[in-house]
Parts: sequence; structure tokens; C-alpha cells
Amino acid sequence: MANKHKVIFQPAGRRGEIEEGKTLLEAAQQLGVDIEALCGNKKVCGKCKVRIEEGYFEKDNLESKMSHLSPMELTKDELKHIKHEDGPNIRLACAVEVRGDLKVFVPERSRAGKQVVRKAAKELSIALDPAVKKYTVSLTPPTLHDMTTGDYERVLKAFEEEYGLKGLVFDYKVLLGLQDALRAGEWMATFTVWNDREIIKVEPGSVQVCYGLAVDIGTTTCVGYLTDLGTGKVINTESMMNPQVPYGEDVMSRITYAMTNPEGLKTMQDAIIAGLNNIIEKVVTEVHKNGPHPGYVVDDLTIVFNTAMHHIFLGLNPVYIGRSPFIPAVQRSMDIKARDLGIKINPGSYIHVLPIEAGFVGPDNVGVLIAQEPYNQNDKVLIIDIGTNGELLLGNKSNVSSTSCATGPAFEGAQIKFGMRAAPGAIEKVKIDPETKEPQYKVIGKDDWHTNIDGKINAKGICGSGIIDVIAEMFKAGVIDKTGKFVMNTGSNRVRLDVDGKPEYVLAWADETSINQDVTVAQADVRALQLAKGALYTGAKLMMKKMGYETLDRVELAGAFGSHIDREASLTLGMFPDVPIEKVVVVGNAAGDGARMALLNKAKRTEATERARWVQFLEIATDPAFEKEFMQAMHIPHMKDKFPNLKKMLEEQNAPIAASIKG
Amino acid sequence: MANKHKVIFQPAGRRGEIEEGKTLLEAAQQLGVDIEALCGNKKVCGKCKVRIEEGYFEKDNLESKMSHLSPMELTKDELKHIKHEDGPNIRLACAVEVRGDLKVFVPERSRAGKQVVRKAAKELSIALDPAVKKYTVSLTPPTLHDMTTGDYERVLKAFEEEYGLKGLVFDYKVLLGLQDALRAGEWMATFTVWNDREIIKVEPGSVQVCYGLAVDIGTTTCVGYLTDLGTGKVINTESMMNPQVPYGEDVMSRITYAMTNPEGLKTMQDAIIAGLNNIIEKVVTEVHKNGPHPGYVVDDLTIVFNTAMHHIFLGLNPVYIGRSPFIPAVQRSMDIKARDLGIKINPGSYIHVLPIEAGFVGPDNVGVLIAQEPYNQNDKVLIIDIGTNGELLLGNKSNVSSTSCATGPAFEGAQIKFGMRAAPGAIEKVKIDPETKEPQYKVIGKDDWHTNIDGKINAKGICGSGIIDVIAEMFKAGVIDKTGKFVMNTGSNRVRLDVDGKPEYVLAWADETSINQDVTVAQADVRALQLAKGALYTGAKLMMKKMGYETLDRVELAGAFGSHIDREASLTLGMFPDVPIEKVVVVGNAAGDGARMALLNKAKRTEATERARWVQFLEIATDPAFEKEFMQAMHIPHMKDKFPNLKKMLEEQNAPIAASIKG
Repeated sequence: MANKHKVIFQPAGRRGEIEEGKTLLEAAQQLGVDIEALCGNKKVCGKCKVRIEEGYFEKDNLESKMSHLSPMELTKDELKHIKHEDGPNIRLACAVEVRGDLKVFVPERSRAGKQVVRKAAKELSIALDPAVKKYTVSLTPPTLHDMTTGDYERVLKAFEEEYGLKGLVFDYKVLLGLQDALRAGEWMATFTVWNDREIIKVEPGSVQVCYGLAVDIGTTTCVGYLTDLGTGKVINTESMMNPQVPYGEDVMSRITYAMTNPEGLKTMQDAIIAGLNNIIEKVVTEVHKNGPHPGYVVDDLTIVFNTAMHHIFLGLNPVYIGRSPFIPAVQRSMDIKARDLGIKINPGSYIHVLPIEAGFVGPDNVGVLIAQEPYNQNDKVLIIDIGTNGELLLGNKSNVSSTSCATGPAFEGAQIKFGMRAAPGAIEKVKIDPETKEPQYKVIGKDDWHTNIDGKINAKGICGSGIIDVIAEMFKAGVIDKTGKFVMNTGSNRVRLDVDGKPEYVLAWADETSINQDVTVAQADVRALQLAKGALYTGAKLMMKKMGYETLDRVELAGAFGSHIDREASLTLGMFPDVPIEKVVVVGNAAGDGARMALLNKAKRTEATERARWVQFLEIATDPAFEKEFMQAMHIPHMKDKFPNLKKMLEEQNAPIAASIKG
Repeated sequence: MANKHKVIFQPAGRRGEIEEGKTLLEAAQQLGVDIEALCGNKKVCGKCKVRIEEGYFEKDNLESKMSHLSPMELTKDELKHIKHEDGPNIRLACAVEVRGDLKVFVPERSRAGKQVVRKAAKELSIALDPAVKKYTVSLTPPTLHDMTTGDYERVLKAFEEEYGLKGLVFDYKVLLGLQDALRAGEWMATFTVWNDREIIKVEPGSVQVCYGLAVDIGTTTCVGYLTDLGTGKVINTESMMNPQVPYGEDVMSRITYAMTNPEGLKTMQDAIIAGLNNIIEKVVTEVHKNGPHPGYVVDDLTIVFNTAMHHIFLGLNPVYIGRSPFIPAVQRSMDIKARDLGIKINPGSYIHVLPIEAGFVGPDNVGVLIAQEPYNQNDKVLIIDIGTNGELLLGNKSNVSSTSCATGPAFEGAQIKFGMRAAPGAIEKVKIDPETKEPQYKVIGKDDWHTNIDGKINAKGICGSGIIDVIAEMFKAGVIDKTGKFVMNTGSNRVRLDVDGKPEYVLAWADETSINQDVTVAQADVRALQLAKGALYTGAKLMMKKMGYETLDRVELAGAFGSHIDREASLTLGMFPDVPIEKVVVVGNAAGDGARMALLNKAKRTEATERARWVQFLEIATDPAFEKEFMQAMHIPHMKDKFPNLKKMLEEQNAPIAASIKG
């Protein structure tokens, strides 16, 4: 057995015995200390800086003990990220291996905040015809003449007589409770039936309540909508960070984790199943207090995710979808016994996994598809689902195409110097005065807009929608030009050169922040966003070309991020081909809506299967025109010329903001 | 937590810490010491006598330690069984609670021997069409154009093209191995398909071997027949005592155990599943050395048992089949995922449970039914399956009836003074000289017949077939009359009065035995056998009456016990209505044969379902004629008058015996 060493994390005060050779980042994960690690241990994001306070680094650690710090040599990877101004004894948690007892301080900047979940459920208008229904059945008590008929057969006979339902079968585990339930209910019992085919629960007497859970597992955020299958209403919502984040911020880094760690797939699967069980317990316990365990009242579950999350969740090796020819293990929808996955709902129930469209275009995009139904529309609509990956649907009732864009994680704040998740302290909205270049901004967790004259507001970084905003505003204020290059000599001290001589824009002064550093937007940040928006724009443009579309009738922005993006900023930056701003619609978490619809109406499941095969997948990255389009798409267009009404709209939009600042 | 005490069992030398308040019998079970306990802890059989060698019995055992024996008071139950001649310090293990450290001696008579399993497999003649088949499939390696098709879909397409098999589904757990198997086999893999419907295993490359296991769970004995589904041959057989025996020797005592112990059902289910897994491991390991675990090569499993064993095995509450109106939880056949039961064969495989006919007439009798096929015969046949319970089938192609007889456990040696299971040391065959009343007998484990002039042969007791034999012989030799009463004054010292003044017959003198006691047949033993055979006879007779049969064309004796019963003795005693001795056929383990047939040909499963419903269950015990018939059936008929040829046949039968005695 490997040696273990004592590791203490401050200021959290967490401590524990860590196996020799583990990294500090792994130690932090093991001890439940949240350290920001956007790149997923690949030593490239430089977010996981920690300060070694005490430690002992002898190779031969037979006499390891708390002692004074021995000299540390930074690795080559660390030298790229750790600057003199970071102060002494700073290292990357992912680069330090535990070789002796350690006391470590995690600076606030490196602490991962709790994500603000922005996946609220909107009202859906859909006919109620769930896959799971409850039937109450009364039997005559058996006599000696019934010895050749089991309880099973007598229930089936009653179903046929009372409801005309034939050929039902009992789930084996449910059968185990049949005898006692029939007798406890004095020969009346309620049966939960799945797809008019299988009895998945039996309860004594008459039971009405029938719940389903629609689940959306995002790369970053997971949400569960507890739904009353009798009314179709969402009665509670619960969300969490995807507990796989410590194993990689994006899809590719998780696939890498599964490839490089023998137990990697299982570790990540266990994490997400445990996380989902946690959601189930919370979402139910708040509204319902019955049954052998909280999740027992949940009789059905539908789930969407991208292809990689799908594979990892189900325990399918994700390696083959990470490399050419990107073949998924399974395309079709699946019904899997909850107990086979260890999901703690009613043990006889199935979870319904929506189908994959193609390669990376996963069940989540099928959810968007059946929620938005472009195939039922005359309008040519472009639907952009921006999660950690960007997925596009384009078309109308004649035909619909899909593709997946490698936008990179910039939209979610990764690879951005002061980027962070949508957590308290994140700057989420920005306005910049074109004359003075002075910004106003709004921080998550505070209701009011802020200017630097208001003093300290504990800003910590910039989240995805804040980055779109600030860069669009920098462009409009003339801080950067349409190629993304900084315009120097603006006369404002906000635009300056950093220690390396590279231009940056100061969004918040150190004294407004909780990290005591200026929060800035660097040239590299502008470039990262240009790459991301360029990929989206190019994807949409090439799809239009392939489909022979000259113009779009509507753009729908979906996803946790899509719900909070500023429409005008997205137009300013040119994230998608031109449409009038009034034709840009924010539709919320459409993937989750699709999961909810599949829960409420079983015809939606068939529709998902059929439409997932009907949609044409377009491979964009290999298109010969890609590179040229992409280079052009990096530019920031001048929207004002194209939308004469924009100025007036913007003024209207800004009026309440101005009021809030004054107030 | 309860106090624990040290308990040592001699001569086995097993020792361990036992929780205060457990009985010595439970302690013995816990420590793996076999103590005969036919009545299943009910303090009525008196078989579990042990001698307390050292012990300490203070109620307040704070200072419990090995010390001299404190005075012990026998319980009322024990006083019925423990006689002065048993010697000092003898108690019933089921009546003594552990209240301090103990050293216990288990006399040989109380030790349970290893059952001799007599359920060998005979050759079956049946067309091969198993429910489980293997198919080897080759795929073209995927390209970028296949991104919309998962591995799953490509396999199904190949199945359709190569084998015309449509609409297959993958077992979810099997799907988890698909990707790696396809790539490991360079796009060739072998798929195991259940009922042309579900893929239950995937292996890289081409695999031929396909095994099935037919299982017969008896109340006392369990056996598994490992079968090559390609050839239909049994390639190995493994058997064991039913590990539920410590919880009760017969069906009713196990039901009682389930009723009276909160975890009783689970304890017994766990025991039999663990036992079956043990059989699986042994039966496979001896002939096959592949796969992730031994049972992995077993792709299908069929199983028969009586209704109570069926319920306990599946975890269904057996209480309701133990009380009026005797309703089983389920009548139909079932296919249950092996993994849902924790059975360690291929995890994707199903076990096929044959259907129940009615009440106590369980899947084992359905096995007999489809193996013997009375419904395809012109002859009116009576099939007697004697396990721990007696089950009867009667009829021909016009109609077949079934019933269950409460024979009691006498046929298996329980409730018989020197009764024991068919284990080494058991007297299994007996002849008595009508003149001298001197017996010859054969002991299991010895090849030759024995007379008392041969000296010590270590006889220990009498097993089922020995009891039939000795009582039939006692009748023929005039030791008992046709009412079962002892005839005294025969002039032989073998017929004598016991200490209570009751008559008994000495079958073996103390010096021939390993227990240093005379092995005797008591008046009560004769009565117990008369009751058992009377029940069988009455059942058959009343069935004949209800079906309007005057005579039988054939009697088939089935079951572990039925295979070893002496046909002539059974006729002598009148275990069933008269037929010529040449029309009595011993058919072996027909229940097991039925399980094997269901394994080899899936049409047999449909046949089982249809015939189980077609057979008419007759309730005999409630028939008004029962009591009168039963009283008459207790008598022992005089066969010789009815079968003039019998004497000659007997002489022929005895010739080899006589030869073996001389030799």
C-alpha cells in the first residue's frame, strides 16, 4: 500500500490523509475542496493556483513530517502561468504531487463558486399522455377454487375486464411485493403501468400521485424537473453543478480522463449517478414525504445530455466518439431499468434516454428539436443551443439539418483570463460609455448596476454573458476595432498595456473586487471569443449554404447560456448570420423542455426517434469552404449600419439600467 | 450489542464467538458443524442430541468463562426425547441457549452425513432447438459517413442481412461491452441471442461453446446438469444438500421459518442462491477454464422446484401458499434476469422458471409432466414423484389430473427412530428370512450385502428406501401383520420389547454399528410409514375414482427416492393401487429431465405453460371419501395372492444378492 500524507487546505480547513503521488488537485477533490480547474488537470488553464504554506518535499519521505518548506522548483508548465506578482510559494495544484505532509492555502481566485443555475422551467403546452399511468384495481378475495390461479394471473384478469388492457407483465422485483400489497389493501391495489405493457409498481389501496422527473445533464450544469404526471405541472426544480467537472471542464477533457485512468469511466459515471440521486432526493423531499425512500414516488424519468455525457452516464466507453470516425455505441432511444443504473427512483421504473442524432449531436439536441419543432414550421429557423458545446439546427418543415460546432469553452468563461462560471461575484452584464470608456456592470448576486464610484462590490471575474457583453461594448466604444485589435491612445486609463506589454481593458479596479486585483479583458480574451463566435457563425453560414438558404426568418437562442445572452450584444459581435433583432428569440432550456415533453406525452418519444433519424447531419469542419468562412467570421461586424432601428431599441433597453444606477 | 461467548464443538474442533441467546443448533450452523435437525428447530424430532462437556450457565454472565458444568435442567420438550440411557449431560442442541462459554460434543448419531445424491442424468431424446443460440457476425469497419449510426444499429443491420433476424434488442449491460468487443475482434463478434429477441452476450471473434444449466432444487437435494446446447449432452453434473435444510427439513417448517423470523425469507433465499452459485462454479470449473468468472460460459438456465422452494428462491413470501386458500403469487412461467437474482451465470442471461400447476403442485411436477408426457399416451399412467412431498399425475391423452399428497417426511427417514438421509452408513436395502427373522442388509458406501455374522459394518441408521424395504420384509416375514401390528412370540430375539414396553425389531446389533446402539424399527416407525404410504395410495385411489378409472396400465416412480425404491417392496406395502410388477417403471429424476428438456427445446417451454393449465388439479384432502379410503389404505396388502408370478420374479431378483453374500 502506498504511503499517505496529511494535507490541510486553508481557509476551508479541510484535512485528510492523501496517498503519496496524488496531485494537490486530486487531494482537493478527495477532501471536497473546490478548486477551479477549467482545463481538467491538463496544466494549461493556470486557474488552480495555490500557495504552499508548510510542507516537506524529500523524495525519501520515511520521516515525513510538518516542517519548514523545502525549496520548490516550478515545472515547465507552471512557469507559463505563475508570474512574479503572484507572490512566493505559488504553484498549480494540478502540478504538485503529494510527497509529504502539506498545508496549502487556496486564494479566493482559485476557489470554484457555486454555479448559479439558470435553467428554470417554462410552461409547456402539450397534451397529457404519459408513458406511465396508474390504475386502481379491485379483486374478489380468492377461495380454494383459485388454487390454480396465482395473484399475478388474477390481477391480469381484472385489468382485462376493467380496463381492456391485455398481456401485461409484472416486473420481477415488483411481483415480490404483490401478495402483501393485495392483502394490505384488502384486495384493492394501485398498479403503475409502463407503456400499457409492464407493471412497474404496486401499492395497496387507491393511490393518485404519479410523478415523473425530466433530467438535463449538461457538461457543466444538471437540472431535474419534478413533474406531476396527472397535471403536467412542474412542481419542483433542483439543479447542481455536474459533479464530473473535477475530471474535466469540457467534453474532450472528460473523454481524455476516461482514456487515461483505468477507472476513469466508472469514477465519472458513479459521480453523475450519485449527483442525480442527490437531485432526486432533494427535489422530492421538499414537496413529498412518503414511501420507502424519497425517490420511490418518481415513476418515470426522461433524460437528455450530449453524446459524451450520454455515454459516460450509461457506462459506455466514450473513447470512440472522441476519435474519428466518431461512432457512438448506440443511436436509438433506450429504456433502461433504473435499478440497473443505480438510480434511486421507483425500482421497477425505466429511465427513457432520448436518441442521439449523430456523433456529437446528442439527445440534448433531440430535446431541442422536439421542443421547438422546426419541422412543423414554415419559417426558416436557426436554433443555437449553446452549452459547453454549440449545436445548431437549421430548417423548416421541408427539411432540417444539424451540426455541432467546436466553439471552445470561451462562452462559459474558460480560457478567459478572468473568466469564471456564472457564480456569485461574476460580472454578467456590461455597458461602456463610448466617450469616457468608463464601464457600468452588474454582478451576479447583486441587484443593482455598478460603477466604480460605488466602491467595493466584490467582483471576482467575468462569466459567459459578461464576456459577450464586455467585448461587444468594447467594440461599440471603440476600445477594439472590427478585427478585434485594441485601439490605443483612447485617453482612458482603462485601456493600458500589461506587464508583458500587451493591451488590456480594465473592467473593474482592484478595490472593487474581492480578489484585490484589477479585473481586465486581455487581447487573448478577445481572440478566444472571436474564435468561439466565428465557429458558430461559420457553422450556421455553411449550413445555410448547403441548404440553399439566403436568409433566416428567425434565430432561437437556447440553453442555459442562451437564456441570458444579450440579444443586441450577440448581434453586435456577429455570433450568427444577420436577422432583424426582433427575430432573435430567447427560448430558454429547450433541451430540458424536450425531456419534459417526452415525459408528458409518449408520442413525443416516437417523434424524437423518427425526427432524430429524419434530421440531416451536416459535417461542417471538413467542408473545404470552412477555413475561408471562418477567417471572415472572426471579424466583428458594424451592426448599426445594418439595423437602423437598433439605436432607438438600445436606448429603450438601457433606460431601466440608467434608472437603476441613479436610484 | 449482544454479549458473545466462546463455543467449541467436538470432535470437529470448530470454535467461534456466538451471540448470547442463540441456540447450540444455530451456533453449529454458524460454525459449519453439521448436526442432524430433521424437524427444523421445532424440538420434536429429538435428532440433535449433544453432550455438554464444559459450560457455565449463569444468567448474569458478566464473568462468563470456561468452568465446571453448572447443573442443567432439561426442558419439557427435551424430557420427551432424552432417556436415562443416553448418558449424562445430554441435551437437544435446539433447546440449549448459549449463556456462557461452552464445550460441546456431537455424538456420531447426531452428525448429519453428506447426502448421497441420486439424481444422475439419463440420455434424453429430444430435438435441439434451445432458446439461446450463438451467431457470429462480421461488420465492415465504420467510416465518417456512419456517424449517424451507432454500433448497436450496425450490428442489427448485419443480423437482418445475414440471418434475417429483425427487431433484436441489446440487453443494456451487454451493450456496455459492445464497442470494445467489436474492435477487439476486428469487427467480427459472436452474439448470444435469447428467443430470437434479445442479445444477451457479445464476445469478440467467433465463439462456438454455448452452455446451459438445468437445475432441480429439491427440498433436500439440489442438482445442476451442465449441458452443451450444441450437442444436447450433459457434460457435468453437480449436486448438494439444499442449504436451507438447517432452517427446516420440510416445506412447512421452512414456511414457518419465514413467518417467524423477520429476515427468514431473505436468509433462506440467500442460502439457496449462494448454494446454486456454488454448484455453478463447481460444475463449470471442472470442465471449462475461461471467461471473467466460471459461470460466465453458462448462457441459459432452466429451473424446477416445488411451489414453496419456488417462492423462497424467488424471494416471494411463501406464507400464503402455506395457508388456505393456498394461493401462489404467480402461476405462469417466468424469465428473470440472472443478475436480478444474483445468479452468477452470464449476467445478461435469463433464468427460465417453469410454471406452477396449482397450490403445492409446483414447477417440479410440470417438469415431470413434460418429461413423461402422459398427455401423449394411450395408456392410463400413474406417475408418482416422491421427494419430500408426494405428487401424483394420473391420466392419458384424454385428460390428466394432478394432486399433492401430504406423505410426511417418513419416506426420507425423518420421524423414523433410526431414520437418516441417504448418506454413508445408511441401511438402504433389507431382506428378512421368514423362518429365522434374521436380516441381510446393504449399507450405503459398501458394495456387499451384510449379515450379522460378518461383524462390524458401521451401520448408522436407515434411509428412505431401507425403511420401505425393512417394513415390507417385516410384513412378509410375519414380524408385523397387515394392520402393521407387531406379531410377538416369533421365537426370534430380534423381535422384542423396548424399555417402554413397546415392540421393536432389531435390524442391526450394536456391534455392527458405528453408533454402538442397536438399530431398530419401532412400532411408531411402522405407523409413520403406513401413514405416508396410505396418503399416497389414497391420493391415487381417489384420483382414479374421480377420473372413472378402474385400473391402471402403468405406474411410473420418479424422483431421487423413486429411483431407488424397491418395486416389489412398494407393491408389498401397497404404496399405490395394484398393477402387475412389470408395469411398475422407475423413471429417475423426471423433474430434472423436464428442466433439461426445457433447456434443449424452447417448444417444451410453451408445452409446459399450456399443459400446466390443461392438467386438472384435484383437491383430495377435502374429498368426503378421503378418511374412509385413508383408513383402509393404511393396511398392508398381501401381494402374493394377487401376483402369481411374483415369487419367481423375487427369486430371480434375489439371486445376485445371494451370490454377493456367498462371494
